[in-house]
Amino acid sequence: MSYSSKLIEQAVEALATLPGIGRKTALRLALHLVKQPPEHTEAFAQALLQMRREIRECSVCHNISDTEVCSICADGRRDRSIICVVEGIRDVMAIEETGQYRGLYHVLGGLISPIEGVGPADLQIETLVQRVGQGEVKEVLLALSPTIEGDTTQHYIARQLADKGVRLTTIARGVSFGGELEYADELTLGRSIVGRLPLQTRFGEGGD
Amino acid sequence: MSYSSKLIEQAVEALATLPGIGRKTALRLALHLVKQPPEHTEAFAQALLQMRREIRECSVCHNISDTEVCSICADGRRDRSIICVVEGIRDVMAIEETGQYRGLYHVLGGLISPIEGVGPADLQIETLVQRVGQGEVKEVLLALSPTIEGDTTQHYIARQLADKGVRLTTIARGVSFGGELEYADELTLGRSIVGRLPLQTRFGEGGD
Repeated sequence: MSYSSKLIEQAVEALATLPGIGRKTALRLALHLVKQPPEHTEAFAQALLQMRREIRECSVCHNISDTEVCSICADGRRDRSIICVVEGIRDVMAIEETGQYRGLYHVLGGLISPIEGVGPADLQIETLVQRVGQGEVKEVLLALSPTIEGDTTQHYIARQLADKGVRLTTIARGVSFGGELEYADELTLGRSIVGRLPLQTRFGEGGD
Repeated sequence: MSYSSKLIEQAVEALATLPGIGRKTALRLALHLVKQPPEHTEAFAQALLQMRREIRECSVCHNISDTEVCSICADGRRDRSIICVVEGIRDVMAIEETGQYRGLYHVLGGLISPIEGVGPADLQIETLVQRVGQGEVKEVLLALSPTIEGDTTQHYIARQLADKGVRLTTIARGVSFGGELEYADELTLGRSIVGRLPLQTRFGEGGD
């Protein structure tokens, strides 16, 4: 594209470094900013700069945080006896979104992957073991992806925590709500049969 | 979405003001910036700020420009006897991209639209008449959209320039290259028959 403007070109280059933003979209975004009052771009850039300059890792759970200890770890109303172990910060957001979990988190920052050269020492596993060793924790919920890397990491962590006297759990796998059986993949459907649950009826016939 | 971080939330709000960027995409972009080194966000924001602070309108053609007079108007190799009149800066980019035009431009900054309350005085029409009045220009090529607003604007400009002794032209309309006849809309196909051209053969039978 011929921009006839070095300034536009530089802005397009910058915007096109964002994931999923090609040069055509980047141009559209740049021209949008040009059409808005200058204060808009100032506020826009300031929000991004402030985020990048001030964001840090929570010293307890390694989630992203605005402060030394994140708002979840600092929240006195959260259940401190359970830690949910996740791969990354987006998993924390997804689980928080459900509103079903009131415990704490531990963000590993990745999964063990010999192929990509990621070993246990590259992840926040040692710090998890230390947290658990402090005695307050009674349950560790492993919420990792059902991949080779996820399973490897899960096994490694389970071994590390074997003698700590905590209950180890993992999130339930099965056919999604609203999902039709015929469209579920074989592995998920198979696991949902192996891990079948007693039917909960209103008459109290089942139970867990 | 529960961000558990005011900084992320502010960045997401800012990114989501961009056209076509929803909150989910904005979050993905914000987390991408967080994962990159801080220098990346600094350079990113700087490119946008510099563009917005320094970009201006060319004082001659009203295209966006890095300088008082834009690089096209300042280019001595361009044909100064022809001015292409367009609605906006993206049209300039599109025409430049073709590599088929070596004249100058004039950006109106919109089209006459009584419905949207845009009159001739809101557009760069008076400045076009002045440019043409300076005598160097021999042809004005009107490259406006084939809409009611485009046609209205075209007529208005044509009337303003009627006594200036310049040739008025408009871009050719017809079935696009590679376009199949059966898929062309009736108006375009109809116009392409009314405005049919002599066939240019290798034997020089036709000609324009």
